Amino acid sequence: MEIIDVIHQRASLKTCLSPREVEAEKITKILEAARVAPSARNFQPWRFIVVNNKKLLETLVKNAFSDVNHVAQNAPVIIFVCGNPGEDVTIGGKEYYLFDLGLAVENMVLAATSLGLVTHIMAGFSEDLVKEQLGIPLQYRCVAAIPLAYPDCKTYEEAAQDRLKQRTRKDLKEIVYTNSWPKLA
Amino acid sequence: MEIIDVIHQRASLKTCLSPREVEAEKITKILEAARVAPSARNFQPWRFIVVNNKKLLETLVKNAFSDVNHVAQNAPVIIFVCGNPGEDVTIGGKEYYLFDLGLAVENMVLAATSLGLVTHIMAGFSEDLVKEQLGIPLQYRCVAAIPLAYPDCKTYEEAAQDRLKQRTRKDLKEIVYTNSWPKLA
Repeated sequence: MEIIDVIHQRASLKTCLSPREVEAEKITKILEAARVAPSARNFQPWRFIVVNNKKLLETLVKNAFSDVNHVAQNAPVIIFVCGNPGEDVTIGGKEYYLFDLGLAVENMVLAATSLGLVTHIMAGFSEDLVKEQLGIPLQYRCVAAIPLAYPDCKTYEEAAQDRLKQRTRKDLKEIVYTNSWPKLA
Repeated sequence: MEIIDVIHQRASLKTCLSPREVEAEKITKILEAARVAPSARNFQPWRFIVVNNKKLLETLVKNAFSDVNHVAQNAPVIIFVCGNPGEDVTIGGKEYYLFDLGLAVENMVLAATSLGLVTHIMAGFSEDLVKEQLGIPLQYRCVAAIPLAYPDCKTYEEAAQDRLKQRTRKDLKEIVYTNSWPKLA
């Protein structure tokens, strides 16, 4: 699929997760997409924990995820995205590991979309409980949890259709300026 | 181009920037790609300043960019990526506007790559000088500057070839774990 189409068709679809197994080679392709992302000075501050043990996944979701994200337990796989602030630059308080994790995660969700999988980037979970359960060292932060699944209907397009119809985004003119920030009247 | 190919062919190519004009419709496509990116609770904390005034662009690069990024002045366009920490969630000190800007910026550089343009995400500049010159309000942070240009050789592939040959990334086994962080021996 053309990349511009994938970018526009990607949607957050936590209500459409099928328990059907996702092939290991698809997961590898998604992780490879994250791996080649750019990062500040090529620091690559990211780590990914693939949780595919059903019991562990359910326990994590039940204990650590906020109620609105409990549907994540329908997915056969959740990838936890971690980063170490100390493995990247901080400039004027801006911790670039977060920016760089964003670059890598977008590659992941686009790759997943192109493979017919649904995703949903989640931040609504208890980081402490996730870190404890998965043995994540103190210096790493757990920034996102991404369920990966086949759609629970025929195709990705069918799963995304309603969601994309309801998509709301600011107009370009609200977020894009040319040659200077607009002066206040 | 297939998205997985674009993800793998994207490279940071600041040494290959042609001064050739980039069509406005290509820039719009790139900004539309950023616009539809996901963000925490759909907060869309991003703003983009398109600098295409040649004199302004050169002044900015000369005065505010670090020496290694002075080549950016060869580009006909630089997009400055800004975000407001207060327009997004902060969880346990993790400022998600940075993560969300990363999601949007990866869409931009992938879209640009698929349009045959070269990019380079830069953080090496004086934020204070850029903010002053572009009139960016106090509460917004300027997180990245992205020159956009045609390659200064025949094709994107030709420009990226050497760079991709030299690409270094951690192995998947260094960054991916299954069901738990590896125990120390």
